[in-house]
Amino acid sequence: MKLTTTMLLAASLAFSASALSSSDDVWWPSEWGPDDERGAANRLTPEKVIAATSLIQRGQIYQLGRVYEAGMPLFPGRHYSLTIPGSPTGGPFGNNQTVYNDEVVSAQIGQVGTQFDGLGHIGTRVDKEDIFYNGFKQSEFATAAGLQKLGIENVGVFLTRGVLIDVAAYKGMTRLPVGTAISAEDLQGALRQQGVTIGEGDVVLIHTGHGQLWMVDNEEYSRGGPGIGLEAARWLAEQKIVMTAADTWAVEVIPTENENLAFPVHQELLGKRGIYNLENLDLSSLAADKVYEFAFMFAPVKFKGATGSPGNPIAVR
Amino acid sequence: MKLTTTMLLAASLAFSASALSSSDDVWWPSEWGPDDERGAANRLTPEKVIAATSLIQRGQIYQLGRVYEAGMPLFPGRHYSLTIPGSPTGGPFGNNQTVYNDEVVSAQIGQVGTQFDGLGHIGTRVDKEDIFYNGFKQSEFATAAGLQKLGIENVGVFLTRGVLIDVAAYKGMTRLPVGTAISAEDLQGALRQQGVTIGEGDVVLIHTGHGQLWMVDNEEYSRGGPGIGLEAARWLAEQKIVMTAADTWAVEVIPTENENLAFPVHQELLGKRGIYNLENLDLSSLAADKVYEFAFMFAPVKFKGATGSPGNPIAVR
Amino acid sequence: MKLTTTMLLAASLAFSASALSSSDDVWWPSEWGPDDERGAANRLTPEKVIAATSLIQRGQIYQLGRVYEAGMPLFPGRHYSLTIPGSPTGGPFGNNQTVYNDEVVSAQIGQVGTQFDGLGHIGTRVDKEDIFYNGFKQSEFATAAGLQKLGIENVGVFLTRGVLIDVAAYKGMTRLPVGTAISAEDLQGALRQQGVTIGEGDVVLIHTGHGQLWMVDNEEYSRGGPGIGLEAARWLAEQKIVMTAADTWAVEVIPTENENLAFPVHQELLGKRGIYNLENLDLSSLAADKVYEFAFMFAPVKFKGATGSPGNPIAVR
Amino acid sequence: MKLTTTMLLAASLAFSASALSSSDDVWWPSEWGPDDERGAANRLTPEKVIAATSLIQRGQIYQLGRVYEAGMPLFPGRHYSLTIPGSPTGGPFGNNQTVYNDEVVSAQIGQVGTQFDGLGHIGTRVDKEDIFYNGFKQSEFATAAGLQKLGIENVGVFLTRGVLIDVAAYKGMTRLPVGTAISAEDLQGALRQQGVTIGEGDVVLIHTGHGQLWMVDNEEYSRGGPGIGLEAARWLAEQKIVMTAADTWAVEVIPTENENLAFPVHQELLGKRGIYNLENLDLSSLAADKVYEFAFMFAPVKFKGATGSPGNPIAVR
Repeated sequence: MKLTTTMLLAASLAFSASALSSSDDVWWPSEWGPDDERGAANRLTPEKVIAATSLIQRGQIYQLGRVYEAGMPLFPGRHYSLTIPGSPTGGPFGNNQTVYNDEVVSAQIGQVGTQFDGLGHIGTRVDKEDIFYNGFKQSEFATAAGLQKLGIENVGVFLTRGVLIDVAAYKGMTRLPVGTAISAEDLQGALRQQGVTIGEGDVVLIHTGHGQLWMVDNEEYSRGGPGIGLEAARWLAEQKIVMTAADTWAVEVIPTENENLAFPVHQELLGKRGIYNLENLDLSSLAADKVYEFAFMFAPVKFKGATGSPGNPIAVR
Repeated sequence: MKLTTTMLLAASLAFSASALSSSDDVWWPSEWGPDDERGAANRLTPEKVIAATSLIQRGQIYQLGRVYEAGMPLFPGRHYSLTIPGSPTGGPFGNNQTVYNDEVVSAQIGQVGTQFDGLGHIGTRVDKEDIFYNGFKQSEFATAAGLQKLGIENVGVFLTRGVLIDVAAYKGMTRLPVGTAISAEDLQGALRQQGVTIGEGDVVLIHTGHGQLWMVDNEEYSRGGPGIGLEAARWLAEQKIVMTAADTWAVEVIPTENENLAFPVHQELLGKRGIYNLENLDLSSLAADKVYEFAFMFAPVKFKGATGSPGNPIAVR
Repeated sequence: MKLTTTMLLAASLAFSASALSSSDDVWWPSEWGPDDERGAANRLTPEKVIAATSLIQRGQIYQLGRVYEAGMPLFPGRHYSLTIPGSPTGGPFGNNQTVYNDEVVSAQIGQVGTQFDGLGHIGTRVDKEDIFYNGFKQSEFATAAGLQKLGIENVGVFLTRGVLIDVAAYKGMTRLPVGTAISAEDLQGALRQQGVTIGEGDVVLIHTGHGQLWMVDNEEYSRGGPGIGLEAARWLAEQKIVMTAADTWAVEVIPTENENLAFPVHQELLGKRGIYNLENLDLSSLAADKVYEFAFMFAPVKFKGATGSPGNPIAVR
Repeated sequence: MKLTTTMLLAASLAFSASALSSSDDVWWPSEWGPDDERGAANRLTPEKVIAATSLIQRGQIYQLGRVYEAGMPLFPGRHYSLTIPGSPTGGPFGNNQTVYNDEVVSAQIGQVGTQFDGLGHIGTRVDKEDIFYNGFKQSEFATAAGLQKLGIENVGVFLTRGVLIDVAAYKGMTRLPVGTAISAEDLQGALRQQGVTIGEGDVVLIHTGHGQLWMVDNEEYSRGGPGIGLEAARWLAEQKIVMTAADTWAVEVIPTENENLAFPVHQELLGKRGIYNLENLDLSSLAADKVYEFAFMFAPVKFKGATGSPGNPIAVR
C-alpha cells in the first residue's frame, strides 16, 4: 500500500486524540547542556578532522549525493520543481553582449532527494506539546518563517571519519528486500568481517543495496526499505556516532518492526539523542570498491531556520 | 543608482539590436576537447586532493558560507522564500506520536546568497546565438526544465588547495570601497607580501572587506563592489586556477572599469575559459587569522540542469 | 515605523504568554448553524442575483482588481514571483511547429495584491486554541497542506448588489490620510449624500483615495491606511452585508484606534461574524464616475484549503 | 502512451531542425489592427453585457471551475503545491490575540486545473522566430519575468452570452471516448437539436462528459480527450465567438486527427485568430439541467505578463 498525503493527514488526526502520557520519559537536558542546539555535532573536533584527513592516501573522491531531478522519489506531499526562467534569463547586456541563466526551484528543499535531517525535523508529541531534541518545544521555537532554534545553520560541518557497513554484502545479497530489519548483531558482524570498528564522532553509512532502485523502480524504492531497527539504533547511539546514513529514504527499516510505531528510529536518534541522519545516498561505488573507512565531508547549506539540507556528501580516501 | 529588473530588461532590449559581430573571437573548442562540460574542474586531480589535505595540520574549519535568510541582498529580479508548512508539518503519527517539520523554499536557488556559478550561467550573444563555454549554444542545450549541458551536476567536487589573497590588508584598508578595481599587480603584490604563490588547480579567494556590509548595509553592499578587472582575471586564468571567489556579490569590480561592458570578468572566466566563480563568501575569519593557504572544500548540490548551487564552502587548516 | 517580519514574529512570541481569558465571549454557533463554513455568503440568494443584475443598464464594466506584479506592496514576510520558464517554455512540436509559454508563480497567492479574505484567514487565540468563525479550531482543521474547514473552495460566488461609499468625497478630500478612522456616522452621512442605502447581502466598497498611492508611493501605501474602525464595522455587520472592501490593504484603519488591538475589524467581521473582506482594490474609476450602486461580481479561485483568493472583482452598471 | 516531460523535450529538439518554411502563411495584422493585444476580446461590448444579463431570469449560478488540489491531473512538467506556513501563520498579536493563516502556492498558475489560455500561451515557430497572435514575436516580447505583450492583464472581462453545446447528449452518450473528434456538423446538429444558435461575441462551451473522469480516473483523463478538430474550430471562428471551452484539458481532440500536428486547434484559434480557450471545466450540472444559453462570466486574474489565469468561471440563468 502506498502512503498518500491524505492517509498521513488522516492518521495524524486519528492519533491526535490518543497522545502519549507525559510520564513516558524525559530526554532532556542534553549531555551538552540545556541550551545546546547542535547535539552530536559537538563530537566533531579538530582531532576528528585530523584523524579523518589522515585516511586520505589516494586522493580519491566518492560523490555520495544523488542528482536532484523531476521524477525522483518523493515522500508524500512533497514536490520538486526546477525551471530556467527565459532563455536566456537575462541579457544581452553591454557591448560585450553578456547573457545569463538562473534557475527557479520550489521544493521542500531540505527534505527531498539526498537529504540531511537536522534536529528541528523530528519531534514527539507529549500531551499537547511537540517536543524536540533537548526539550525544545515547537510552540516556542517554530514560526511560519523558519525555526528559531535547532535550525540547520547551527549544525556546522561534518569533516570526520566515515565508516561504511556493507550489510548487503555481509548477508550475501546485492539488495536487502524492503522491510528487512538490520540488528545490532548484523552491524557488529559486518564490521568484524570488514575488520573495522566504529567510534565516537564517526559517521556510519549503511549499504543495503536498496539504492539500486533509485530512478529504476521508484515505486518499490518508495514503498519502504531495509534499515536499522530501534535496537540497532540504540547500539549505534552508544558508540557516540554523529550521524547515520544509508542508501534508502529512511535509513530505518520501513515498514517498522512494530507497526504501531511511526519512524521510531528517527524519533530516538534525531528527536532525543541529537544524532543526525542522511538519506538517499548513492553508496554503490564505495561498496563495490570495498572502501570501509574514509574521510567523510558534508557541509549543510545554511538555510536559516530550516529542518534539513540538500547536498552532495563525499567520501575521500 | 540602483539596478532594477526593469532597467535590466530595458537594457536587454536596447542592446539586442547591436549584437557583436561574430568574427569577434572563437573560444572553443576547449583545451579539454569539444565535448567537455567541466572546464577547469578537469584540473582537480587526486594529487591536488593530497596536496590540499597535507595543509591540514590543526583540524580547524572555517565556514565561508553565508546564512540564507529573508532580507539578504539579492540581485534584481530574484527572490528567496522559506516557510515551514504547518506546525508541525506532519503528525503526530503512531503510538509513539512522531511529528515532523519540513521547509518549503522558492528561490533562484543557485543564484542567491553564497552562490557557485556553473558554466551554464554566463554566455555571450554572437549574432543571434547565445554561446557558452566550449561553444555550447543556448538554443541547443537550454530547456525550460533545465540545462541539458553544462548543468551543475557535471561539476564534481572541489577539494583542492585554496589561497586567500587579502587585498584589503595589502592596501592597508579594512574595506575597499565600491568600484575599486583590483589589478594583477595588486594580486601579485599581496601574494608576495603574504609569502604565498598560486598554481594550477587552486581556488583563489579574494578578501576585500566588502563582506562587512552583508546584512549591515545591504544597500551599499548591493550597489556594487570592489573586485578584479579583466586584466587581473586574465592573469589568474593564466595561472590555471579552477575558481575565483570573494566576499562580494560579483567577485569582479562593479561598476565595471569600462562602463560599456557588462560583467566582462564573468564572461571571460566562466563563459569562455571554464573557470568557476563563488560569490558572497564570509572571508572575515580567514583574513583575521591570516590564513593564506588551506584545504578548500566545496561540493555543489547536484540540481540537474541548474546554473549554480548554494552551499557552505569551507577552508581547513 | 515600518512593520517587518521580525517585528511581527517578536510580537507574536511576546504576546503568546498573555492569552485572553476564555470567558471573554463566545461567537458560535453561527446564525447558520454549528456546521456552517460559509458565513455571510449564505446571504447570497437568487433574489440578490436578480436584484443585482437589474442594476445593469449600460453594460459598462469596471475592473476593480489590481495588476499583480513584482514590486507591488506586500505585507511583511510575503513574496510574489512570476517567471516564464524557457523561451518558449515548450516546443516546437509537430510539423505545425507549435510552441507554448507557461508561467511559474510562487506567492502567498490568496494574500498578495487584490486579495479576498476567506474565513480561515483570521482567528482569535483563546487560552491555547486559535478559534475561527463558528468556533472552528485551528488544531482541528488546519494542516500543512491546507485547511480542512473554511477553505476558500466553500465560499461560492458573489453576484450581488454592490454599493460604493465614497468617504473621501464626503469629507471633501481626494485622499484620506493614513490613520483616518471612518465612523458609522461617516458611512451614513456619505450614503445619505449619495442617496443610496445598503441592505442585506450587499457588498460595501469604501473609497478612501488611498489607492492613488499604489505603485506610486508604496512606502506610504504600506505604512497604514484610512479605514473603518470597530464601531463602523459593527454597524455594517448589523446591516447584514456579505463583504467589506476598499482601496486599501486592510480595509480597517491602520494604525488601529486602540494601539493595543491588532486588526480588530478583521477579527470581528471575518473571525466572528463571517463577513468577508476584499483588499487592494482600484476604486478610482467608480468614484470618478459617481457610480454608487451596481452589480458586483467576484468568484474566488477554488484553491482547496486556501485562506484567500486573488482575482479581478468587477462592478457592472 | 503517456506524455512525459522527457518525451516532449525530446520531441522539441527533434523537430527544431525541421522548421516550417516561412512562406507558409501570415496571420497578421489582426482585424483589430497591428497593435492589438486583445484579439476576440474586442468582441465583448456593452451590448453583449446587456444581452447576456437579460438571460438571467432565475438568479441561478453554476460554478464551472474545478477545485485546485494536490493530485489533480497536470500536464507533463507542471506542478501544484499549496502549503499553509505555520499554524497559525502569524500571531497572536495584540491584546485581542489576533492570529492569521496564509497559503504559499507554487505552480504554473495559469496553466493548471481550470485554466484560461491567453494569447501569449501558444505560438508557431516560423524559421527561427516564435510568432504569436498578431505577428508578435517571442524574441521581442518574452522576458524571464513575464510577457511584455499579450499578457493576461490586457484581456479584460468576459461577461457575455454563453452557449453550452452538449455533444455527448447529441451522440446519445454519457461520455465521448478519448480521441473522439467533434466536427462542425456535430456542433451544428447539437445546436439544432437544442434549438440554440451561436453568434458574435459568444463563449461556446462543449460538454463531452470527459469531465466525469476528473479525480476519478486521472490517468484516463490525462491520456487525451474528445474534442473539436481543426474543421470545427474554423467553423466556430467564422461565427466570431470569443472563446472555446470544455470539460477536457485541451478542448481540442487528443490525440489529434493528424498525428503529425501538435495542438493544431490551439495554434489556429489562440495563436492566429485571437480566440481564447478555457479548459478543465465542470459542465456536468449545466448539462444535467439542459441549460444551453446563459450569462457567462469570467474575469482573468491580472498576473502581469502571464500566459493564462486560474479562476472559477460561472454560468448564470
